[in-house]
Amino acid sequence: MVVKSELKLIKSLQQKKCRNEHGLFVVEGKKTVEEVVNSDMKVYKLFAIDPSGLDVNGEQVSAISNKELGQISSLKNPNGFLGVFHIPKQKENILSDWILVLDGIQDPGNLGTIIRLCDWFGVKDVVCSNTTVDCYNAKVLQATMGSITRVNVQYTDLQAFLSTTKLPVYGTFMDGVSVNNSKLPEKGIMIMGNEGKGVSEAVAKLCTDRLAIPQFGDVTTESLNVASATAILLHEIRK
Amino acid sequence: MVVKSELKLIKSLQQKKCRNEHGLFVVEGKKTVEEVVNSDMKVYKLFAIDPSGLDVNGEQVSAISNKELGQISSLKNPNGFLGVFHIPKQKENILSDWILVLDGIQDPGNLGTIIRLCDWFGVKDVVCSNTTVDCYNAKVLQATMGSITRVNVQYTDLQAFLSTTKLPVYGTFMDGVSVNNSKLPEKGIMIMGNEGKGVSEAVAKLCTDRLAIPQFGDVTTESLNVASATAILLHEIRK
Repeated sequence: MVVKSELKLIKSLQQKKCRNEHGLFVVEGKKTVEEVVNSDMKVYKLFAIDPSGLDVNGEQVSAISNKELGQISSLKNPNGFLGVFHIPKQKENILSDWILVLDGIQDPGNLGTIIRLCDWFGVKDVVCSNTTVDCYNAKVLQATMGSITRVNVQYTDLQAFLSTTKLPVYGTFMDGVSVNNSKLPEKGIMIMGNEGKGVSEAVAKLCTDRLAIPQFGDVTTESLNVASATAILLHEIRK
Repeated sequence: MVVKSELKLIKSLQQKKCRNEHGLFVVEGKKTVEEVVNSDMKVYKLFAIDPSGLDVNGEQVSAISNKELGQISSLKNPNGFLGVFHIPKQKENILSDWILVLDGIQDPGNLGTIIRLCDWFGVKDVVCSNTTVDCYNAKVLQATMGSITRVNVQYTDLQAFLSTTKLPVYGTFMDGVSVNNSKLPEKGIMIMGNEGKGVSEAVAKLCTDRLAIPQFGDVTTESLNVASATAILLHEIRK
């Protein structure tokens, strides 16, 4: 049995405000919980319908009933495993050769897919505007498929961040230069904009280069999905 | 007011079986409804809370109450516009230079994103295995952002389809040859596999070439999302 106050706390972590207040976030599903436990992140509490089913490096796992899990899960069909972890401190050091900057990404699935792409393409740092969806949102975490443990995601004021860098700053725009005709350097910053509005005006002014992914044939669809565009650009960076 | 039997029919179209039985599918949202009305697809019925708000080329729009719309919508928050359309007949002719083949894609968001990518990259034909999620599923349609009207999606037995083609057949595999080291021809077939299992064994046997998208740095994440992989491969085809 889990005490009521604890159920209330965990449920509250579905809201960004409460996650930040308590410095905690929730992960669901056997595979992802195990992956986070076996990373650098620190466990707060682990719950499972069947605690013996979880491979968690000797960490304590509390038994939880189906009913209790239903009360705290953000899933329609909770799948038996839930972990609460401490939100890691933002690392100050930028380690990557390339840095991905996100200017106002709103869709949790897009952000999760982009973090997973960064993991695949070895881009270790993602710098998000404060207007970008929170990376500890349950839907984001689900889409990262565990990659959140290997990519350093920061939130900051992009204008302040970009105005101090000496790296070339690539922005993606409908009217930019085709990425097929651009030779990308070994280090740089790549900026992806909001799903509807693209890169914001203030941030666009700080770009040193404007890139585009060319459409083929007749112009029909309005735009590429931002996660699809990120896939193509990170692939080009790493070629 | 909409008659009860009609509400019942439209609600039933949330199921694939009923869509096929009636040859009808449902689209929601002002922009997408307008896009489908203004395409080759044939209108069955259009509904709107405010019929004057829809730009539909002279087609008749029936007024519907909030309550009625809530009864037939597949959205948590219906947004005022719903269109029912006839499912177009499968076109026999393959028009494209490149054909995308999908072998068991399960996630509606992935299929929708892939159809949108085909529209962007001018790939006019998508051939799906019968195990692939139905392209007239509401979540697929939402993710296509209207591209369903410009891409010809067929469902068929892939082994039969692939065994008759004279085009080179590219499959995507974890252990394939890096796409960075492959010169892709002007015409061909590109096969993307299921999210968890990849290309099925029977279909893999019919591939003439095995491709992979190289990971950068340490091997960490297990795989690329299939829509991200499709984005990169279609970009490579069109370069």
